[in-house]
Amino acid sequence: MSDDKKSGTPKDSHYARLRRAHREQKGSATHFRPKQPVPPGANPPEGLVRLYGLHTVRAALDNPRRKIGRMLVTRNAQDRLGIADLTALPFPAELVEPKTIDKITGSEAVHQGVLIETEALKPKRLGALGDTSLVLVLDQVTDPHNVGAVMRSAVAFGAGALIVTARHSAHESGVLAKSASGALEHIDLIEVRNLAEALSQLHEAGFQTIGLDSEGPAELEKTFAGEKVALVLGAEGKGLRQKTRETVTSLARLDMPGAIRSLNVSNAAAVALYAAGRFLASSE
Amino acid sequence: MSDDKKSGTPKDSHYARLRRAHREQKGSATHFRPKQPVPPGANPPEGLVRLYGLHTVRAALDNPRRKIGRMLVTRNAQDRLGIADLTALPFPAELVEPKTIDKITGSEAVHQGVLIETEALKPKRLGALGDTSLVLVLDQVTDPHNVGAVMRSAVAFGAGALIVTARHSAHESGVLAKSASGALEHIDLIEVRNLAEALSQLHEAGFQTIGLDSEGPAELEKTFAGEKVALVLGAEGKGLRQKTRETVTSLARLDMPGAIRSLNVSNAAAVALYAAGRFLASSE
Repeated sequence: MSDDKKSGTPKDSHYARLRRAHREQKGSATHFRPKQPVPPGANPPEGLVRLYGLHTVRAALDNPRRKIGRMLVTRNAQDRLGIADLTALPFPAELVEPKTIDKITGSEAVHQGVLIETEALKPKRLGALGDTSLVLVLDQVTDPHNVGAVMRSAVAFGAGALIVTARHSAHESGVLAKSASGALEHIDLIEVRNLAEALSQLHEAGFQTIGLDSEGPAELEKTFAGEKVALVLGAEGKGLRQKTRETVTSLARLDMPGAIRSLNVSNAAAVALYAAGRFLASSE
Repeated sequence: MSDDKKSGTPKDSHYARLRRAHREQKGSATHFRPKQPVPPGANPPEGLVRLYGLHTVRAALDNPRRKIGRMLVTRNAQDRLGIADLTALPFPAELVEPKTIDKITGSEAVHQGVLIETEALKPKRLGALGDTSLVLVLDQVTDPHNVGAVMRSAVAFGAGALIVTARHSAHESGVLAKSASGALEHIDLIEVRNLAEALSQLHEAGFQTIGLDSEGPAELEKTFAGEKVALVLGAEGKGLRQKTRETVTSLARLDMPGAIRSLNVSNAAAVALYAAGRFLASSE
């Protein structure tokens, strides 16, 4: 590191200068004041969702099914998204300061300087299920963080669809999408009115449906059979509904030797998907 | 269902009465007004943490290492915790309305009507590591939700300790504890100053240390060897630090066939713990 010849006192060392520049840039008056949290603004108009965060927005921009209404973006996020010219986008995009987005999402949301307003993706019907040997089914899981995290694992482990109930489920939202980290754009979300009927249709399509249950009669690994697997998970605390438990091909448990015998639903889904993927690969 | 003889009109049906009672209980003027979010209050005094939620507080009450300063609890939560007499507790406990706790935790926190103020548990040193064949190591993971969820999985899958760096890690907090759902009280949290040194000490103690890395040269399942396994995970996005990558016995990846090739850190930890547990059980 070369010294600056004009200012040799310790006060003017390289790091002292950096610190001072940093203080000045931030404005010394506000430097030691903790940031006041900004609450979220009003909800988006009916049928629209607001997506934010670099990964989430990048994936949405790359999804031809997305109908985007507008974008708010900071200079920095524009660079990080690699958008050379905002006016070349097929929707209005406005260059803003981060605090403009804070006022919409609330300052707790990690929006990373970009927000889009878009139509929610249209969920599919069960008839649209493609050729896949692995699907994940959620029985009334309402927490959007959990559903988003489950989507991400489902995409990572190659599940062909996520099947949820039309009622008592988390719907597409900024929180869900952020938690899914782009996965929302990569998986078929199928909504069904009656989960027991949907499970019967899966059986007709050749799926073994396995309900995850901490009191299940056998280990998951010893329960797999056949060539197509549908993993069915319930909400934390509530678990699977009685009708669901009666309809699945089998109930199975993940063996946990420790003092806590239940996982967060997204962690249980990740482990079950991993185990199912290994089983299906081994029996190919 | 028996009819009420005094009031036979449809307006006075069982459900109409229930609905009316519900409206009156809530206060009809506020019934249709969306609840205004309450921001969290000031931080607890240095060295103290505030834990909330039924599972979390129940586990803390059952932990003899906990030094609890005071409790705020609603009548309902007192019942659900099965505490017959608040005055019999070895610390002051005050019966409050839910909104009193809202003002401390913020109304977004799922406190379920109970909050305790307690000393943070003292993290242990690596020398205190007990006789275990499975540990989890986090390389600078700072998100308290993730660290809490990782703790829960670590306890569920029987890991003997969670090893973290003293700096740039999430510390005990209400958010971490809630996410851990009681697991905080069941695992040895070991803090180390220098992670590379700690890994070397684990090697001396007979552990194979495996760093999870999406670009790892081999699959995790094919990497396991020996009788003791330490799984090392980095923060999302950043991954493992260079020095960590150089120090571990092996780098390994979780095979993901899908369009997304990285998992949330708590999901990756759950899958890796599950796989390691199965390997260790099979080689016993």
